[in-house]
Amino acid sequence: MKRLEERIDAEGRVLGEDILKVDSFLNHQVDPELMQAMGDEFAHYFADMGITKVLTVESSGIAPALMASLSLGVPMVFARKHKSLTLTDNLYTATVYSFTKQTENTISISKSFLSADDKVLIIDDFLANGQAVNGLLDICEAAGAAVGGVGVVIEKRFQRGHQFIVDRHIPLLALASIASFDNGHVVFSHEKEQINVQ
Amino acid sequence: MKRLEERIDAEGRVLGEDILKVDSFLNHQVDPELMQAMGDEFAHYFADMGITKVLTVESSGIAPALMASLSLGVPMVFARKHKSLTLTDNLYTATVYSFTKQTENTISISKSFLSADDKVLIIDDFLANGQAVNGLLDICEAAGAAVGGVGVVIEKRFQRGHQFIVDRHIPLLALASIASFDNGHVVFSHEKEQINVQ
Repeated sequence: MKRLEERIDAEGRVLGEDILKVDSFLNHQVDPELMQAMGDEFAHYFADMGITKVLTVESSGIAPALMASLSLGVPMVFARKHKSLTLTDNLYTATVYSFTKQTENTISISKSFLSADDKVLIIDDFLANGQAVNGLLDICEAAGAAVGGVGVVIEKRFQRGHQFIVDRHIPLLALASIASFDNGHVVFSHEKEQINVQ
Repeated sequence: MKRLEERIDAEGRVLGEDILKVDSFLNHQVDPELMQAMGDEFAHYFADMGITKVLTVESSGIAPALMASLSLGVPMVFARKHKSLTLTDNLYTATVYSFTKQTENTISISKSFLSADDKVLIIDDFLANGQAVNGLLDICEAAGAAVGGVGVVIEKRFQRGHQFIVDRHIPLLALASIASFDNGHVVFSHEKEQINVQ
């Protein structure tokens, strides 16, 4: 998505080896109009998949997921993050490890809001090692829900998450795909995967 | 907002003395179309206030704040919650106590995204004791930003937050105002405050 790439070029800051900070428009301050355009882009790409629900994880996934769900005309559900959970009777849960924060969280979704009748679009702000997506896939499997696709605002294609999803033959749309960081600059990838949206 | 009250009547569950669970459309599963209608309602009410930024706290505030910011055509910023913070050089911070969870959090906003040039609309999902709003007011004061108003999806008018805001002469719009819980049922208030939006 050209407009997003331009915004990343203008405002993104590369920190260290593999961190891209885009908190001026994506995950601290949010540009609602760009967010809506990105939601429309996700909805357009996955329009014919029979999506019944958009799933994400709090907090940074909520804004793009909400806009995608608005454009698709289906509900959005955001998984809650917890340090630990004692009562899990009415919850689907999965464990998610964060490499950047080096912490392990349990994510959960109420059993009331996901079922075997659902076909899910998973949305997140970043795809790096794929831990959050993996956790949501585990939850979908436990619920018997089908997964129609994964949409991320920005993927770091050189990290594990991209290949992890491709290997599972899940349609993946990254609105901006980063091939590498070169001396503090972002190098975008425009390679497409050969996954047919069915 | 009649549509919201009907939804609360149909799907809300009253737990114990003062908890209303509305996780089927507001803060776990989210109805994007209702959320958009609520965002428009906030934007309409505060349209002439010269709002430059919508402020909220992660996570449940993000969806209504995003829709209000989209409708107003201004950026949205969500404060981050932390158990504790060591590095606060570039952050405005405030302490927020949660009565329901009995935990204390630090909330923070980057100094890059709030300044004395801003006029802020604070949005949240619930107004109970007003702790989150109070934290955001502290942050606005530290930044020298003006506060144009507070908008909440649901207020529990019988708790401290409502009066706290009224006493500060800050325009307040609650899309649903709960006067009391009566044997597990919600009793709405339709009393208006005499605060003129300037």
